[in-house]
This record gives sequence, C-alpha cells and structure tokens, in this order.
Amino acid sequence: MLGLGVVGSEVASGIARELERWEQRVGIPLELIRVLVRDLTKLRPVSIDQSLLTTEASSIIDDPNIDVLVEVLGSIEPANTYIRQAIGKGKHVVTANKEVMAVYGPELIELAESAGVNLLYEASVGGGMPIIGPLRKDLLANEFNSLHAIINGTTNYILGRMSKEGVSFESALLDAKELGYAEPDPSMDIDGTDAAHKLAILASLVFHTKVSLKDVYKEGISSLDATDFQYAKGFGFEIKLLGIANRYDNNLIIRVHPVLIPEEQLLAKVDGVFNAIELNGDLVGRIVIHGLGAGPYPTSSAVIGDILEAARSIYMNVKPLQGVSINEGLNVVPMDSLVTEYYVRMSLADRAGVLPKITSVFGDLDISIASVIQKSVNSDGGIADFVIMTHPSLESHMRQAIPRLTSLEEVKDVNNVIRVER
Amino acid sequence: MLGLGVVGSEVASGIARELERWEQRVGIPLELIRVLVRDLTKLRPVSIDQSLLTTEASSIIDDPNIDVLVEVLGSIEPANTYIRQAIGKGKHVVTANKEVMAVYGPELIELAESAGVNLLYEASVGGGMPIIGPLRKDLLANEFNSLHAIINGTTNYILGRMSKEGVSFESALLDAKELGYAEPDPSMDIDGTDAAHKLAILASLVFHTKVSLKDVYKEGISSLDATDFQYAKGFGFEIKLLGIANRYDNNLIIRVHPVLIPEEQLLAKVDGVFNAIELNGDLVGRIVIHGLGAGPYPTSSAVIGDILEAARSIYMNVKPLQGVSINEGLNVVPMDSLVTEYYVRMSLADRAGVLPKITSVFGDLDISIASVIQKSVNSDGGIADFVIMTHPSLESHMRQAIPRLTSLEEVKDVNNVIRVER
Repeated sequence: MLGLGVVGSEVASGIARELERWEQRVGIPLELIRVLVRDLTKLRPVSIDQSLLTTEASSIIDDPNIDVLVEVLGSIEPANTYIRQAIGKGKHVVTANKEVMAVYGPELIELAESAGVNLLYEASVGGGMPIIGPLRKDLLANEFNSLHAIINGTTNYILGRMSKEGVSFESALLDAKELGYAEPDPSMDIDGTDAAHKLAILASLVFHTKVSLKDVYKEGISSLDATDFQYAKGFGFEIKLLGIANRYDNNLIIRVHPVLIPEEQLLAKVDGVFNAIELNGDLVGRIVIHGLGAGPYPTSSAVIGDILEAARSIYMNVKPLQGVSINEGLNVVPMDSLVTEYYVRMSLADRAGVLPKITSVFGDLDISIASVIQKSVNSDGGIADFVIMTHPSLESHMRQAIPRLTSLEEVKDVNNVIRVER
Repeated sequence: MLGLGVVGSEVASGIARELERWEQRVGIPLELIRVLVRDLTKLRPVSIDQSLLTTEASSIIDDPNIDVLVEVLGSIEPANTYIRQAIGKGKHVVTANKEVMAVYGPELIELAESAGVNLLYEASVGGGMPIIGPLRKDLLANEFNSLHAIINGTTNYILGRMSKEGVSFESALLDAKELGYAEPDPSMDIDGTDAAHKLAILASLVFHTKVSLKDVYKEGISSLDATDFQYAKGFGFEIKLLGIANRYDNNLIIRVHPVLIPEEQLLAKVDGVFNAIELNGDLVGRIVIHGLGAGPYPTSSAVIGDILEAARSIYMNVKPLQGVSINEGLNVVPMDSLVTEYYVRMSLADRAGVLPKITSVFGDLDISIASVIQKSVNSDGGIADFVIMTHPSLESHMRQAIPRLTSLEEVKDVNNVIRVER
C-alpha cells in the first residue's frame, strides 16, 4: 500500500481487524506486506506493525512477492508515476485516486490491459457506493442517454443549508469547515473541480468513450445567493450542483454547474453530504444509487472490495475485464451547443419600459421567455430583482444575451444565470 | 434459452438488435442457439428465426455446444428441474426466477459451485437494478446490520394511491390492474409472497447465510384502510410494504409487512412502481439503490448483464465466484422475539373509562403507550376511532394484547396493528 493517511489507515486497520473474515469470503489468503509512508517515526492513530512501514516506494514496486499495489496517496504525482511503474512490473493496481483517474484514466486503463493486470478504481467516485463495478458488469447491456450526479458532498451540504435555512454561501461554508465537511482549503470542491474529476471518470464508463478532465465544462457554487433559492422555490425548483453528461446522437456534452431541478425529483431530495448518481439506460430505465460519497469508512469499503476482486482475479488467473477502451465514436462537443432552459436574475435601475427592451434582446437571439417574477420594489420605486425563466435556448445565444442585457441603461446587473435541468 | 414470454422475447429481440455491440463490449462472440417454447406455431410479437424454436428441453440441456442456459420460464417446475439438469451437464445458468431462487437458491448455488459453473440471478430481484452483483463483489467487505426494501412495485403503486388520494385498497387495486401494474390474479403481490421471495434471495447474500422462503415472515396489504394513512400522516409517517432483515448479534429476523416509516426517509418517497433497496453496512454506511423493479426491459438488462458475465467467465476459463455457501453461524429467529414500536387502531363502542382498561392490558404485558389519537365521535357520542402508538415492545406481547383488547366490552374491534420502522 502506498499511503497511510485517513483512507490508508482505515484500510490497514480494517485488514488488521477483519482479514480472516475477508479471506473466508473469497477463499483466498491475503497479506499486507509493506506500506509506504513519508515519516517512519510519526505517531499514528492506527496500530500497525512498524516493520511494515517503508519510505522507499521501490521496495514495494520492485518486490516480486507483492501482487497488488493499493494506491491511496491522492494527488497526481507521484501517484501517477508509481501506478505506471507497478503496472509495468505486472502488479494489479487498486486506486482511490480520482485526480489520476480523471486525467490519465483512459491511458492507464489501456496500459493495464496490455500488461494483463487489473486497474480497479471503485473508490475514486462516490466513496463506497457501487457504481464503477455495476457499470463495467451488471449494467453493461445498456445504452445510456444521460447521467446526472451529485458527487460532491461538501457543496451539497452547503447548498442544502442555503436552501433550507436561507443562510449565505459564506456562512454555510464556515459551518461546513467547522463540521469537517469542508477541507481547510475547499476551493477544489467549491469551484466544481472535484465533481468534474469524478464526472470524467463516470462519463468514460457510461458512454464507453475516452473522457478526461479537460472535456468537462465546470462552474462552481460561489456565485449563488440565498435569494436564488427563494425564487427557485417559487417556480417549484431546488438548486443543486450536478455533474451532467447527456448524449445527443453521437455527441456528448459533459458539465458540472449549479442547476435548478424540479423539487419532486429524487436528486432534489438528496440531503447533506450524501451523493447520488442517476442513470438513464435504454433497458434499465432510470436508476439512482444513493450513499455516502466520501469518508474513510465508505472509501475503505470500495478499496477492500477492489482488493478482493484483484485477489480473486490472481487466484483464478483471469485476464482483467475490458475497460473503456472501446471507442464507440462519440464526440465531446463544447457547451456552446447546449440547448437548455435558463433562470436569469437581474437587478434593475429603472422598471419603466424595460420589459420590451429585455424581450427584444432575447428575441433577437431566439430566446423566448417562459415566465417572469418582479420583486422587491426599492425605495426609489425601481424594481430591485427581476427574474426570468426561458424556454429551451442555445447556450451560445444566452452568452451573447448577457452583455447586451448589462448594457441596457435600465439594467444594473445580471446577477446570476442558472441552467434548468428537468 | 428456456421460455419466450415477456422477458424471453425482450432478451431475444435485444440479442437480434444489439448482439454486435455486446460482443464488442466483452470481446467475446455470442450466439443464441435454441429457444424452448410450448407451441411452435404460436404467433409471437418478437421476430425470431423459427428454426431456433424447440418444444424439447432436452435438445437444449443435452446439447454440448450450448455453454449457457438462460432460464426465463418462471414458476418452480419445470424450471427447477431444468436448472439442475443443466448444472449437471456443466452448463452455466442465468435465471430470472425468484421463486426457484427463493426456495432452492442456497442448494442450487452449492450444486453450481461443486460443478464449477456460474449460477447468475441478478434478474430475480429488482429488475435491472444492480444489487446481486454489488453484494457479491463491490460491497463484499461489509458487515451489514440491516436491509430495508421496497421490492414489489404493484403494492407500492397501490399504497401510493391510497396515501396520496385517500382511495380504498379495492379501488387502487382495480386501477393497478387496468394500468397493467397488477396481474389478473395479483394475490402473490398483495399478500407479500412476491416480496418474501425476493427478500429471501437478498438476505442470503447480505448476511452470508442460507435463507429460504420459509424463513420469511409475511403479511400483505389488504387489511390497510385509507384512514390508516391519515392517522399515520398525523404522526409524521408514510405507510409502505417493506421487506426487512435485521441482525441482532447472531440472530436474524426476516419479514415482509406494512410499516409506518418516517415521511422524511428516502424509502417513504419511493413513488409508483419503483423499487428501492436500502442497506446499512459497517463500512459503507447507508446505501440506497432505486429503480424499476420489474418489466421486460429492466429485467432483460439484468439477464443480458449476466449472460455477458457468464460469457467472460467461460472465455477466461474462470471458476465461478463463491456464493452464499459460507455460513457465518447466524440463526433466523421467529417474529415473536421482534422488538418494535406499534400503531394500533381500534374502534370503540364506549369511550367512558376505556383508557385505564387499555393501559392496563398493555401495562400487564410491558407495552407502554407513547401517544394516543381519539377521533370521529359518532352519533351516539362514542368514539369511533382510537389510535395508539407504543414504545418499543415485544411482538409476542403485542400478540397477546390483541385478544385481551378485543374482549373489553368498550372495544368493538382492533382494526389494524402496524409495526413502525425508524
């Protein structure tokens, strides 16, 4: 094992506690042989045989007695290099590393296939929720047309607080940090990067296409305001940060951003730090998998599940499952070509005669207005908030509309544009 | 393939339509060789090469060129016999048959293991929802302490109508039949038998213990009244038919019956014919899998997923996964020993002095009352409905309480006793 942080410690203590039971369940003997750490003398919460610890990765990667490498270091390097070296030495690899898999996944999967070893990464998305395994096996007969996922617990917690209690983004984030739901530097969660990593991994499997991080459009949640939740509720919507991948013929659009979703949908009801992944398949219909998407216990469940699978595969001398190497000729196309409904919140300086002007800006770009809310008349008789819901429109047109709206003298600002997902 | 009914037809037409894609995904050639039907001349909605049809099971079971038997006949016999014969001939078996698996599952799994063939049955529970696969693989590291499942779409549809619209059981059932959600003879759904079949299959896997149909306590939904839903709502509960398996130390209680569950729980929000399975594991925490639990398309998704797994296993010359043959020494104990809260609805002939008498009946049996609703004063001044919620109490004591309550002269009838599950 490479790494003895929160996940590594839980895997190690799980092995110490439950090894016999797990061996029994698969009928194969298992042994933790060596663990890479940075500092041999560090005091650790997990009781582990000190003689297992090493600071030399090569003493693991080059040891021919080690069959399976468990990588729980996190971050791209040196994890990426170690994984490649281990595959090169014919070792099976189990990784919980979403960054490596999002950026180099398709390449590493091909490397592992040519080397005839397993590269297992159930823990990289959705903690212990079974999703990679089912996509590679149980659900393999399906053609999927969409994937909608809440795959970042930190932001889901923050959005839930903002929605239910009307607190500000900053205040909800502060609470999330205090409760340990957000890391000291939460920027990768807040700006959608973490969700984009996981979405790239999932979309590859769902659509049998090579998808990597750069194919994923992303926006974070920091621009959301408590008032957006109020207006959304008025229209019957909840606001969630979703990872979405849609297939249109042979094109894919893959994106992470806040969306308005109808409040009666299951994803709208996912509370707190829970994750949920919704898939629409031609045979299976709509499937939702819901569970804890992070934390040392759930993640260790996935890591150990993969270790047991690698063990079985070694024991039975099996070639690994085919991965995402089948390119079914789908193309990832840019966000510009997305067609969706929009929620647009503006503040107005002057209400008089503004609606025809706004309608004309939208009309010129083929954006038609579905409904309007005007609210919060301010002291000088102007209308502070003006919220528009559109019919399905082209993303590139909406992008052109925004500067045109801002340049109207009656419009103080376009505060927020949020896409709608039904 | 044995059978060309709704599921068999969908599997056959899927193979006709998608074979090439599926072959590509697993890298293995597949061929549908022969299909057992009852009548060669029957007109069928699926276009299938007539030369594949046979009325002789032996022409499939005894053909050494056939590697995988797909059993989609339903019912126990002759399916059970054919499955045994096929295993005996060294064929891998894919089955969608919940009845055979609920009654003979542990035995058939052992037979298949000794013969070194796969017995795959993902389609027997929850349609295309991935559950058997994840339990055998991805979630294998967990010790589960409970399983709660909505695994019968017909009854979930009926209960949803009763809850939302206040219609009677009979009227909701009639609509379910008209919409094709209930079969012409729906008794196996209504009385909990269908859910009990599926629960037996799931509980075996979840607890690594041999569980069969006779171990499952069951009650159906026909005694529920629209008023029960109203009172339940007053206490903050929804009523659902759940399959439940709880582990207490080394004991299991396995049961299907209507329950009151808190309305904020995810299972309370499962609508219409959807199914949902909730598991609580020591590592993974609470996981919920939600999807369509029946229908030819979802079921064919699971059947084909299993066919592809069997194909891979033949191609790679792999021994099958170990099944539920590890007996971890858990005992299924009778319902009598269940401790739970109860909802008790009575009709009273006379209100005067009745509460002390009821309290005394319960008190003598160590059942303590948590809250009471008295409602619907009828014309002669008596109280028609009297609803009690208890604190956790022993099932055997509640069973003794009911005749004692009925024998009170003030009590006209004990109309319904429903267990509460939090």
